Amino acid sequence: MALVVQKYGGSSVADAESIKRVAERIVSTRRAGDDVVVVVSAMGDSTDELRDLAQQVTPLPPPRELDMLLTAGERISMALLAMAIAALGLEARSFTGSQAGVITDSAHGNARIIDVTPGRIRQALDAGAIAIVAGFQGVSQDTKDITTLGRGASDTTAVALAAALGADRCEIYTDVDGIFTADPRLVPSASQISRISYEEMLEMAACGAKVLHLRCVEYARRENVRVHVRSSFTDREGTWVHELEKGTPMEQAIISGVAHDRSEAKITIVGVPDKVGEAARIFEAVATTEINIDMIVQNVSAVQTGRTDISFTLPKTDGTTAMATLAALKESVGFEDVLYDDQIGKGAVVGVGMRSHPGVTAKFFSSLADAQVNIEMISTSEIRISVVVDQHDVDRAVVAAHTAFGLDATEQAVVYAGTGR
Amino acid sequence: MALVVQKYGGSSVADAESIKRVAERIVSTRRAGDDVVVVVSAMGDSTDELRDLAQQVTPLPPPRELDMLLTAGERISMALLAMAIAALGLEARSFTGSQAGVITDSAHGNARIIDVTPGRIRQALDAGAIAIVAGFQGVSQDTKDITTLGRGASDTTAVALAAALGADRCEIYTDVDGIFTADPRLVPSASQISRISYEEMLEMAACGAKVLHLRCVEYARRENVRVHVRSSFTDREGTWVHELEKGTPMEQAIISGVAHDRSEAKITIVGVPDKVGEAARIFEAVATTEINIDMIVQNVSAVQTGRTDISFTLPKTDGTTAMATLAALKESVGFEDVLYDDQIGKGAVVGVGMRSHPGVTAKFFSSLADAQVNIEMISTSEIRISVVVDQHDVDRAVVAAHTAFGLDATEQAVVYAGTGR
Repeated sequence: MALVVQKYGGSSVADAESIKRVAERIVSTRRAGDDVVVVVSAMGDSTDELRDLAQQVTPLPPPRELDMLLTAGERISMALLAMAIAALGLEARSFTGSQAGVITDSAHGNARIIDVTPGRIRQALDAGAIAIVAGFQGVSQDTKDITTLGRGASDTTAVALAAALGADRCEIYTDVDGIFTADPRLVPSASQISRISYEEMLEMAACGAKVLHLRCVEYARRENVRVHVRSSFTDREGTWVHELEKGTPMEQAIISGVAHDRSEAKITIVGVPDKVGEAARIFEAVATTEINIDMIVQNVSAVQTGRTDISFTLPKTDGTTAMATLAALKESVGFEDVLYDDQIGKGAVVGVGMRSHPGVTAKFFSSLADAQVNIEMISTSEIRISVVVDQHDVDRAVVAAHTAFGLDATEQAVVYAGTGR
Repeated sequence: MALVVQKYGGSSVADAESIKRVAERIVSTRRAGDDVVVVVSAMGDSTDELRDLAQQVTPLPPPRELDMLLTAGERISMALLAMAIAALGLEARSFTGSQAGVITDSAHGNARIIDVTPGRIRQALDAGAIAIVAGFQGVSQDTKDITTLGRGASDTTAVALAAALGADRCEIYTDVDGIFTADPRLVPSASQISRISYEEMLEMAACGAKVLHLRCVEYARRENVRVHVRSSFTDREGTWVHELEKGTPMEQAIISGVAHDRSEAKITIVGVPDKVGEAARIFEAVATTEINIDMIVQNVSAVQTGRTDISFTLPKTDGTTAMATLAALKESVGFEDVLYDDQIGKGAVVGVGMRSHPGVTAKFFSSLADAQVNIEMISTSEIRISVVVDQHDVDRAVVAAHTAFGLDATEQAVVYAGTGR
């Protein structure tokens, strides 16, 4: 008898009918003999509706109270799901994040899981019940206040519970069939990946493949949780994310997938004095604003001026804050100007195969050149090559790379149920 | 500096605007120098909406899960209220029933408060914050599951917290100005009562005066909590409910008020053998169904038959269950028939003054006779006389008694904001 953690997102439990359908899937897993723990998000858009309600009261709700408010969402969906399972004849008990032992730090709105102590979940399973747990929420270790883990963090809740319970697998149900070699809306010949390593999935997620959240994949890798990403609308196998087995023959393609991201902007700081510590001062200042900086590129300093340019990318939503922070530094650091460009996009090829295959960079860049795509910035890791290009060139870049690395499926057999992603 | 517990019902926090208005009242109490604990119900009809949602999933939701679902209602209103207070510049912290230390038994849907351990509330007050507590909910001592206290039980939460915190007063905000000598919709000349004893309030509540719940008044009397029932729409003094001060001159009227109730039905068991233990068997059987029986009347047994009739009143909503239970007893007890009559109403005069004034019964009954009202059943306590009459006679009976006991106000100065009660 295995222990399975299943996570269902908001679109899977959007109304009473959807909840009943999900209940049937859960019940059939339980009846097949496995113990089941379910992590559930709030119904459909209900979290956004609660946010709207808060905005009607005040434009700046205190984070502790916003978390108290938003956690009502999963409370509703989990209780309804437990009822639907009971109506099918099995016992289900719902638990808030706090009751399930999801202990976090006190960073309201974006708390991190510190520990998971799932004593009550274990009790429920021992009693033969199905445990339903609220995703996205926990309780702070210090203040005992209710916290939320940030947007889309129900995946992380599921993986964290799977790790704490020693579950055999963690199934993430979503509205797509799994992870694809590229976004099927851009690349109709993209195909579903059946197995992918944590490392590759991390790079894919960091580069805009939004099916799994970065923090969830990080957690799964650290705790070695086998994750199965699959559709809640079919019984098809999805994509398994797991540790790369040592010694597996490298039959797979050099590149596992091509990711892209249009959510970032680029900031260029022009004419920075090329002295020790200047870059550090700039990025320390930006770091205090808690902005996630992604790619950073520094040009070689021009000999005649002794100055250099530094560019970095960041989420567009953080653009205003970052520009204000940098403008305040202009005098003290003595750089010449700050430029902001949100007309960019990122493309990346990801694959553990590139470790053992030289020439991947050359092939990637020449495919972009053939497609008339100009590269603005380059950044690489051991298993990823990312480029920043003009936002209008992103589609062409992704298609070109997908073809160049032989990822195009022979026939377009891709099922893609999602629309809103 | 006093400590005040204020309770606001669902109609006072029905939308964002109402919540802001309530926040202003709370803030002005705090700014006047008092410590404030607020108990709040769910917004408007949101509890009923959650019940509807449950019905869409299953007609018979498990009670534990229904409680988990319904408690989302106060979670939303209390967080929004805390935000609205923060927007006015004061700190407020919201607490679920569980966090506030409202410990109950495990009777989901109708749990009783066993203990209140308001450590976190005390901490919040000590830190200078206003504490906002979810009404209607608690946590079971045995299973640590979330419970609800039954419809309208937020008043009880408020009184229980006031008792546990040793509050100076408990203010129950509602949509009427206070307790009246009779329902102003029936008796336009009814006037507001400025002070009423726990005992009288208990009898009034038991006889249909719905402003305060019976359990709340019982709790207040037991713990000696001074309750102030008042309107959330004005600053007028409402009605104080407190212990009758010994030795106060009996200036007040003999009768404090006239209550009525149309929610009950009458069951008559015809031809019960007049033997020891027969009545006990009947009422033991009804008791197992957890039906609240109110008035009971047994006629003197007819000498020639050795049989008697027993009538009792009960909530109309329990009629079907009670009739089924009694039908099953017909053979074994050997009575002749069971009759059901839901075309009745109750009227009652209540007042501690009747202890020291003989002739109250006579005056009450003669006022009914003058008004052509036939009395079907009579029941008395030390400070109350209740009658069951035809439901069409209830209005006339209440008006007649109100006039007979000199309760009519000289002018019709009554403000009555409520409509839906």
